[in-house]
Amino acid sequence: MVQQISGGVCAPKGFRANGVHCGIRKNKIKKDLALIVSDVRCATACVYTQNLVKGAPILVTKRNVADGYAQAVVVNSGNANTCNANGVEIAEQMCALVEKHTGVPAGDVVVASTGVIGQQLSIDPIAGGMEELAKGLGDNSSAAAEAIMTTDTVRKEIAFSFTVGGVPCRIGAICKGVGMICPNMATMLMFVTTDVCISPAMLQKALSADVKDSLNMLSVDRDTSTNDTLCVMASGLAGNKEIISADSGYRAFCKALHAVTSAMCRALAADGEGATKLVECRVHGAKSKKAARLAAKSVINSNLVKAAMFGADANWGRVLCALGYAGADLDVTKIDVRFRSGAGEVFVCENGSGIDFSEDEAKRVLSDKEIVIDVDLKEGGYSATAWGCDLTYDYVKINGDYRT
Amino acid sequence: MVQQISGGVCAPKGFRANGVHCGIRKNKIKKDLALIVSDVRCATACVYTQNLVKGAPILVTKRNVADGYAQAVVVNSGNANTCNANGVEIAEQMCALVEKHTGVPAGDVVVASTGVIGQQLSIDPIAGGMEELAKGLGDNSSAAAEAIMTTDTVRKEIAFSFTVGGVPCRIGAICKGVGMICPNMATMLMFVTTDVCISPAMLQKALSADVKDSLNMLSVDRDTSTNDTLCVMASGLAGNKEIISADSGYRAFCKALHAVTSAMCRALAADGEGATKLVECRVHGAKSKKAARLAAKSVINSNLVKAAMFGADANWGRVLCALGYAGADLDVTKIDVRFRSGAGEVFVCENGSGIDFSEDEAKRVLSDKEIVIDVDLKEGGYSATAWGCDLTYDYVKINGDYRT
Repeated sequence: MVQQISGGVCAPKGFRANGVHCGIRKNKIKKDLALIVSDVRCATACVYTQNLVKGAPILVTKRNVADGYAQAVVVNSGNANTCNANGVEIAEQMCALVEKHTGVPAGDVVVASTGVIGQQLSIDPIAGGMEELAKGLGDNSSAAAEAIMTTDTVRKEIAFSFTVGGVPCRIGAICKGVGMICPNMATMLMFVTTDVCISPAMLQKALSADVKDSLNMLSVDRDTSTNDTLCVMASGLAGNKEIISADSGYRAFCKALHAVTSAMCRALAADGEGATKLVECRVHGAKSKKAARLAAKSVINSNLVKAAMFGADANWGRVLCALGYAGADLDVTKIDVRFRSGAGEVFVCENGSGIDFSEDEAKRVLSDKEIVIDVDLKEGGYSATAWGCDLTYDYVKINGDYRT
Repeated sequence: MVQQISGGVCAPKGFRANGVHCGIRKNKIKKDLALIVSDVRCATACVYTQNLVKGAPILVTKRNVADGYAQAVVVNSGNANTCNANGVEIAEQMCALVEKHTGVPAGDVVVASTGVIGQQLSIDPIAGGMEELAKGLGDNSSAAAEAIMTTDTVRKEIAFSFTVGGVPCRIGAICKGVGMICPNMATMLMFVTTDVCISPAMLQKALSADVKDSLNMLSVDRDTSTNDTLCVMASGLAGNKEIISADSGYRAFCKALHAVTSAMCRALAADGEGATKLVECRVHGAKSKKAARLAAKSVINSNLVKAAMFGADANWGRVLCALGYAGADLDVTKIDVRFRSGAGEVFVCENGSGIDFSEDEAKRVLSDKEIVIDVDLKEGGYSATAWGCDLTYDYVKINGDYRT
C-alpha cells in the first residue's frame, strides 16, 4: 500500500536537508545552494543525461558513486558548470566543501549544477555559503527544493510510505525542471531518499527500469539537457530485511519509487516553461510496449499539438500527424482519439477519420488545466503514458532571453 | 552555368499555369485552386511524406505517376483532404475535372491538397471553379504560387537557366510551406517544371539524391506533414539529347535542380510560421556526411536555440546541447561555434568551452534577418547545411487557433 505522506527528502529516516542563497545568482535573492545529508552511508543509484555534452558535476558524481554508495548531495542553481575548462575542478571543490562542513567524505558526495551552460562557475559564493547551509541542516526539504529551482514556478517535493515485509518504509524526493527537458535515460535534477534497506545493485536495477516509464516519458521541449541527474539514496534505517533479489519487497519498493517519479513527472510537465496546462497522452491497444511509448511521446513532443492545446483547439489532425511520424508500428486506419479533462470527454476521431463532435463541448474540455489525449490503436494489449505541456507565448518569452 | 531568370513554373518551355479563388476557404477571398498544365506528357518524378498518415491525394498521385509520366498538376489549399473517409474519391474527382476542362487524361494528373486535416473536402467549389481556372491558363505562375499558399506570407517561385550539351534549358518551381515542416524524403508542396529532356528513371534518381541535402535539411517545427509532395515534371521541349545516364548533362541538371530546391528551402525557412529570421546551421569538419547532417538538423530543430535566435541571445550553450543529443558521432571537446550574419561574426565557443566575446557585438550579429550558426567539428572533411527559423510569439499565435 503506497500512501502519500507530508514532506519531501527528509520524510525517510536519516536524512536532513537545507537550502540557502549564497549569491551565485547576482540579480535576485533566490536560494541557489542545496544540501542533503544522510546520517549513514546510503546505497545509491543514479541515471544521467545521454547528451554527449555532459556537465562537469556528472563526471565527478559518477566517480563518487561508482562503489554504489554515497552520503550527501550538494546542488547549485544559477549556473550549469558545463562547457567550462575548469568545471571538474569546481565540482570537486564543492564536494571538498561538503566534507569540510559536514564530515561526509568528498568521495561520498553527489554533486549537481543547473542553470546557464558555458559560463564559469566561481567557487567563492559556494565557499561563502556552505557553513550556513550545513549549520541549518534539518527537516528542511522545502528549502532544498527551492534552492534547486531555475525557471520552475513552484517547488517540487513529495513523499510516500509503503511497507516491505510488514516493515514501514518511506520514500521522498525533490526535483526541478522545467526547460531543456526531454530526458533520455534520466532527466533534469531529481533527488530521491528512502529509508528502505536495499542493495546498491537492486536499487540501480529498480531505478533503471523505472525511468523507462517515468522520466523518459516526459518532455517539455524535446531538448535533452546536459546536466540531467536522477539520484536515489537508500539509508536502510527503516529496518526491513535487506532487499537483495526481485522478491515481493523489491516489487513493493518499485511501486513506491514509481509513485514518486510519476507524480514528479506530472508536476514537472505542469510547470513546464511557460506552460498553462499539463498534457498527458495515454496510448493503449498498441502491438508492443515500444510502439506505445513512441506514439505517446511523439504526440507530447509535437509543437503543433502543444500550440493547439494552448489555444484549446480540438485539432486532432495534428495528433494523427504526430502518430504517423512517430516511427511506431501502427495502423493509422484503426486509430481512435478522445480528448478528456475534468470538464468531460469528446470523441473526435474514429478509425483514423474525423467524426462529428461539438466544437463548444471540445473547447470546454480543452480549457481545463489538465488534458488527457487518449489514443486507442486497437491492435494489441500494450499501453504507455507520456507527459508534457502546452506551447505558449511565455515559453518563447522565457527562452528568448534566458541569460539576462 | 546555372543562372537565375525571371518567372516560375512557366519559365521552361511547354508549361502554362493559373490560380483562382473557388471558395474552399469561406472566410477569406484568397486564391485556393491552382493548375499547371504541360503541352506534352512529361517525365515525372515525385517524393512524398514518410508520415504513415498520408493525404488521400498522395495515394492518387502515386498511382497516376507510377508509369513515370504526367501532364498536369491540380492543387487546392484550405483543406488537406486527409483523414477523410471519402478522400480518395474526392482526389479522383479533382483529376476528372482537370480532364474535362483541359483534355489531359485524369490518369496523367498529379493532385495535391493542403490545409486542415480531417475536415471533409467538398468537390462543389472545385467543380465550380475549374472552368475559370482552365480558361485562364497561361504565363501565370504567380497566380498558381498564390493559390497554394496557406499560412505563407509571401508566394514562392523561382526559375533558373542552364545548359545541357550546349542546349539552353530552363527549370522553374513554385512551393508553399510554412508549418508542419520537417520533411523526411519530401516536404510541403513543391512543383518543379523543366524543359530538359530526361528519362523518368534519371529524373527520379536526381530528385531522390537532391532531397537529402535540400528539403530533408529543412525544418520549421519538426512536424512532418501528412501531405508533403515534391513533384518534378520535365517536358523535354528544350531539345537537348535525352539524359539517360549519369553523364555531364545529368550533372548539369542536378546542379540546376539543387539551385531551385536550396533556394526554396531558404525561402520556406525564412517564411516559417511566425518566423522573423532565417537560421542556417552550417556544420563542417564532420567525420561523415551522416554526422554532419544529424548535427546541423539537431541545432535547427532545438526550440531553445530557436527561441534564443528570436531574442538575439548568443546562448551558444544551447547549440552545444543540441549537438550533444544529435545522435551524431562527434567529439564535444573539439567543437568550435561562431555566429555570423550580414552584421559581422562572433566566435563564442572553442574546443567545447566558452571564450570571451562581446555581448554587444553578438547582439548586433544576431539582430540580423539571416543568421548562420557555424559549427566546426574539426574531425574530418564532411559538411552539411540545415535551414530553419526562430521560434516566436506568432508561431504560438498562428498554431494556437489555426482552424478558426
